[in-house]
This record gives sequence, structure tokens and C-alpha cells, in this order.
Amino acid sequence: MPFVEISWFEGRTDEQKAEIAKRISEALVEVAGVAPEHCWVKFEDSPKTDFIIHEDSGVRSRL
Amino acid sequence: MPFVEISWFEGRTDEQKAEIAKRISEALVEVAGVAPEHCWVKFEDSPKTDFIIHEDSGVRSRL
Amino acid sequence: MPFVEISWFEGRTDEQKAEIAKRISEALVEVAGVAPEHCWVKFEDSPKTDFIIHEDSGVRSRL
Amino acid sequence: MPFVEISWFEGRTDEQKAEIAKRISEALVEVAGVAPEHCWVKFEDSPKTDFIIHEDSGVRSRL
Amino acid sequence: MPFVEISWFEGRTDEQKAEIAKRISEALVEVAGVAPEHCWVKFEDSPKTDFIIHEDSGVRSRL
Amino acid sequence: MPFVEISWFEGRTDEQKAEIAKRISEALVEVAGVAPEHCWVKFEDSPKTDFIIHEDSGVRSRL
Repeated sequence: MPFVEISWFEGRTDEQKAEIAKRISEALVEVAGVAPEHCWVKFEDSPKTDFIIHEDSGVRSRL
Repeated sequence: MPFVEISWFEGRTDEQKAEIAKRISEALVEVAGVAPEHCWVKFEDSPKTDFIIHEDSGVRSRL
Repeated sequence: MPFVEISWFEGRTDEQKAEIAKRISEALVEVAGVAPEHCWVKFEDSPKTDFIIHEDSGVRSRL
Repeated sequence: MPFVEISWFEGRTDEQKAEIAKRISEALVEVAGVAPEHCWVKFEDSPKTDFIIHEDSGVRSRL
Repeated sequence: MPFVEISWFEGRTDEQKAEIAKRISEALVEVAGVAPEHCWVKFEDSPKTDFIIHEDSGVRSRL
Repeated sequence: MPFVEISWFEGRTDEQKAEIAKRISEALVEVAGVAPEHCWVKFEDSPKTDFIIHEDSGVRSRL
């Protein structure tokens, strides 16, 4: 441990993912003292049709 | 928050997903009073080879 | 399937959870035709110290 | 319940997944007494660019 | 990898969890050839009020 | 999005979690350009009896 899972929209590059994973591992190592080889970072890319945020929906009007 | 994740078999349309996400958001807003823009709904489609339910397996016979 | 997981802040009652689970199951049954006994809904309550949203943090200023 | 989710690298065959799901279900049935039809096993395959383990990174040197 | 997450009802003993984790690791090692020290097994216990299965609900009658 | 979930052993302080969440959000904002208020970071603490790593088990010897 720790196992880190990132759910977001697809579209980022492998380089961005690698850089983010590196910075997350650094944060876990430096702040919490975990062993770096125990930092697993998994990205889950979703198309926008599969990750829905109702910011602009009509849902609010029902409140 | 809330973050809602739905794991199921692939095969549903984008329209079905949008309708389900809308109804889940409505339920969370109306029953629990969360802000609608804080309702994130993520669908994770799996092929049947990756989501295995042993309803018809021989596992039961070992009991 | 489907397995539905809801991550949010703690503080809701069992009655609210039961009502939301019922409405989610109804949406899945009515919109996607899944069997109701295959609708599993799991709530994961977190204290605010364990579910952190940086809406008011100084992070934005670094952009 | 139980819902079992396995996150790993892509590359295994459907036969390997079916065999592993069967053995996990057997373990849950035999050790914990759950009903076999309530054992759901989901595999989440990731490419190596999306599942990053820093075993060989330079992160350690920052400690 | 692999990271295995088991969501189920609370109530099992530590000994049952250890035995199940051991058998899952054995399955992953023997069937898929993963390194045993890379088998992480996490149990997430839920009270019945937080893990809701509508087997006996009135939802079915709406179909 | 993005929703970040960190599964690890219990024992870290709220201050450590806040600092790690801040650094993860910064990484996501700076590297991937996401809005900071869309960075949700959730920690899932587990006791050691619920998060089992077979580093020292006898599983390896069965290979």
C-alpha cells in the first residue's frame, strides 16, 4: 500500500500520467513515509458519456 | 461528493446512461440534499469475460 | 451486476440510504432492464478529513 | 455480496480470468460461507501506462 | 499489481480474511504467474444498512 | 473529475492527509490543467487485518 486510483476524463498523455504518478508518489513518500515501491498509481480514463456531472442539467430546478 | 460508480456489463446506450445518471442525481438531491453539481456518476462497462458471476457454476456443489 | 458504489460524506440516515438505494434500483430496472435482485448499492461514508475537495484552497492561485 | 474487483495489467486470457474467478468464489464459499451466486468477480485490465509502480524510479533518492 | 478489493458484509473474522487472502494470492500466483508479494488483498466490511440488495423489495413489481 | 481514491493502512494524521491531498491537487492542476475545485481526494484507511500483502507468506514456495 498505498493504492491510488484516479478516475477522470480520457485525453491525457502517457507523459502527463507518468508525471502525475511521480508527484503523487513523492507526496506519499515525503509526507507519510511510505516506501516508494509501495506506491501504486492507477489511472482510469472515461469518455464523457461514461462520467457524467450534472453541472448544467435541469436537476437543480427541482430543488 | 457524492461520487457514484456503476459497474455493469457493457451494452447500454449513452442515452440510457444519461437517463440513469439524471435519476440518480435527482435521488441524491431530493433525498439527501446534496448539490446537483456535486453528483458525479461514472459508468464502468465490462465485457462478460471480465465480470464473472458464478450463478451456474459447479461451485455450489462443493458446499 | 450492476454494482453501485456511492462515496460521500458521513451523516445521512439509514432511511435516506434505503430510499436512495430504492430509487437507484428503480432507475436501473426501468431504464436498463436489469433484474432488481442484481442491483447492489453500497454506501461509503467518509468523515470530512478523509474526503477532501479543494474548492476553497489556495491551489487555484497557482494556475 | 461479496463484490470482488481485481485491478492488474492487461494481458491475461479469458481462461485465466475464469479460473481465477472460480477459485476466488470457492474460497469465499468455503471459508466464509457466502452463497456462490453472490460471488461477483470483476477484472479491470490496465495498460502499463495507466498502472504505474515506482519500483525503479528516482523517488527513493529524495528520502 | 494485482490489487484485489472485496466488498461484503461485516462479520467475518480476521482468520477468515487471512485464509481468503491467502487463497486468492495462491490463485493469482498459480494461474496468472504474478509475484506473490504483488498480491494485495483489501477487505471492505459494510454494515447491512450500507450495502443494500433489493432481492425482496417491491421494485420488481414495477417492471 | 478527477476523483482520487487512496487505499492504505490507517494511522496517518489529518494533517498528513490534508497535505497529501493538496499536493495531489496541485499535480493534477499543474500537469493536466484540471480545475482545482474538481479535484476530489478520498482516503480509505484500513487496519492491517483488512489489507493483506503476502510479502512474507509461504505462497511463493508453491511456484
